[in-house]
Amino acid sequence: MKKTAVDIAIIGAGPSGLFMVFEAGFLGYRCAVIDALPQTGGQLTELYPEKPIYDIPGHPEILAGDLIKKLEQQAAPFAPTYLLGAPVQTLEKTEDGFILETRNAQVTAKVVIIAGGNGMFTPRKPALENLDAFEETSLFYAVRDKEPFRNQEVAIAGGGDSAADWAVELASIARHVHVVHRRADFRAAEATVNKMRALVKEEKMTLHTQTQLHGLQGENGQLNSLTIADMDGKLTTLHASRLLCCFGLAPNPGPFASWGLKLDGKQIATDPITQKTNIDGILAIGDMARYEGKMGLILVGFAEAALAAKTAQSLIDPDKKFRLQYSTGHKPGT
Amino acid sequence: MKKTAVDIAIIGAGPSGLFMVFEAGFLGYRCAVIDALPQTGGQLTELYPEKPIYDIPGHPEILAGDLIKKLEQQAAPFAPTYLLGAPVQTLEKTEDGFILETRNAQVTAKVVIIAGGNGMFTPRKPALENLDAFEETSLFYAVRDKEPFRNQEVAIAGGGDSAADWAVELASIARHVHVVHRRADFRAAEATVNKMRALVKEEKMTLHTQTQLHGLQGENGQLNSLTIADMDGKLTTLHASRLLCCFGLAPNPGPFASWGLKLDGKQIATDPITQKTNIDGILAIGDMARYEGKMGLILVGFAEAALAAKTAQSLIDPDKKFRLQYSTGHKPGT
Repeated sequence: MKKTAVDIAIIGAGPSGLFMVFEAGFLGYRCAVIDALPQTGGQLTELYPEKPIYDIPGHPEILAGDLIKKLEQQAAPFAPTYLLGAPVQTLEKTEDGFILETRNAQVTAKVVIIAGGNGMFTPRKPALENLDAFEETSLFYAVRDKEPFRNQEVAIAGGGDSAADWAVELASIARHVHVVHRRADFRAAEATVNKMRALVKEEKMTLHTQTQLHGLQGENGQLNSLTIADMDGKLTTLHASRLLCCFGLAPNPGPFASWGLKLDGKQIATDPITQKTNIDGILAIGDMARYEGKMGLILVGFAEAALAAKTAQSLIDPDKKFRLQYSTGHKPGT
Repeated sequence: MKKTAVDIAIIGAGPSGLFMVFEAGFLGYRCAVIDALPQTGGQLTELYPEKPIYDIPGHPEILAGDLIKKLEQQAAPFAPTYLLGAPVQTLEKTEDGFILETRNAQVTAKVVIIAGGNGMFTPRKPALENLDAFEETSLFYAVRDKEPFRNQEVAIAGGGDSAADWAVELASIARHVHVVHRRADFRAAEATVNKMRALVKEEKMTLHTQTQLHGLQGENGQLNSLTIADMDGKLTTLHASRLLCCFGLAPNPGPFASWGLKLDGKQIATDPITQKTNIDGILAIGDMARYEGKMGLILVGFAEAALAAKTAQSLIDPDKKFRLQYSTGHKPGT
């Protein structure tokens, strides 16, 4: 288990969490950033990395993924420790701070700042019984690495952009791609659907529309075939050694309520001036932080990061007078 | 007198005021932006257009002047009316809004948003008689353009960051730089003072410490020399064709108190959730807006602009339900 000691543990590597690293670093504090997702950026990189955003002040237009790159670059002088790909499982209050654990890392911190966005999004799964027998060996909900699909009979379930994009992408390395979709039409970019139809003509892909997953067969974590059902309930068996389910993400409220944090709906009740939660030493910023009049905008999360840094200083160095620092002309981290 | 009718009159064309145009425009409201300065940007373009800023979220480094250009570009789809170069002189409440007048323009608006920064700042000037004979030709209080200093004998008066930064910066293009400072020590970043001492060794700079400006000589707006006095009153003549006075800015409280606005120190007392002032229909954002815990950062002003737009809608269209809009994928103004 990797052990890290920092001043501030930030839960969530979305835009607010990344900018939090900068604001904390500017005051001299080192941060660890923990996220369940395997990359930084939260929803922006997970859901819409290539969509333009227009309301980031000073960026008339920027792709979501590019904004995240800029924020990472801005945080880089303060050398944050990124602990990605595993959610925080436990949080323990100690005499002078907190111990947080993920499945493979332990972080000791004086202050915890929750920048958890709209919660942990976890992939929607099909209603089948033996999913866990195949997960991470033959059954996937996202493609982090294309190699497991090479030269395989790949089934892709879903009919949105993600399913269509991966169907086309994986067709170039898979032996064959089956797309299983419960509707007749795909809700994906027309150009991508046209590519799929071309691949069908080349006999590299088969589309099973108006059809649903019904069962998985295999052994020792290795999928051999799956059963699909049409609208009348007629079952067919499909040879497939890999299954990629692209059913989107479902919000998961996360472990915050179980830590004793006072919630306001699905968010954490937060003081808008200090970003304090009801637990001493835990602050919240960004979409996860809720107070009267709160606007769930990225640019609001940025301002909250500045407030939270000020509050963190009052908690970590209570005798130090806060001095508003301007970055003008003084390169941070140098 | 130019007459304009808009939904919202924004007083102040600094970063908060410019982003206010975007946020208001995004909700469908047209704005006029009024500023005493002849250009947009407030302090950023008036005082330090060529200084880099590091704490604008998503901009690891951006020159102050470039940030203003980006904000103008972001506001442009909403076609604001810019009324620059003359301060608001009078504000009159009418039945359904306000009438504001500058010396050459009249604006009718439903809501007024004050984004006046730290007020109208005017440069502190030395107590010399014939300043106006040289101002804007040989005598400057800020550097908007470095060209007038190229290959000149440049005198810089002052001993703070601004004087030191410009002394180092202009030494690279001036024939020689004289720094005239009434104290023995410079109140500037150590690294910059060290650079100054290195330039002195290279004979590119002369430091005249414990010395004050005493007189300016020249003709037709062209400075030829200046007289400096040491602590004992002994006078010396210095050849110099350009003088840059870096004595800081003197705040001018502006007309806000006389309009009946409740102040908090020199700022306007503002509700942090709505940005409302004590006068119905007048909001305040940015450095001019004051509340408990307020941080005078540009990025805080941006968030306040989003809040103020929401409040403006509740005032202009009280029956319309506010719907948080995301700009993702939807280009504003189109």
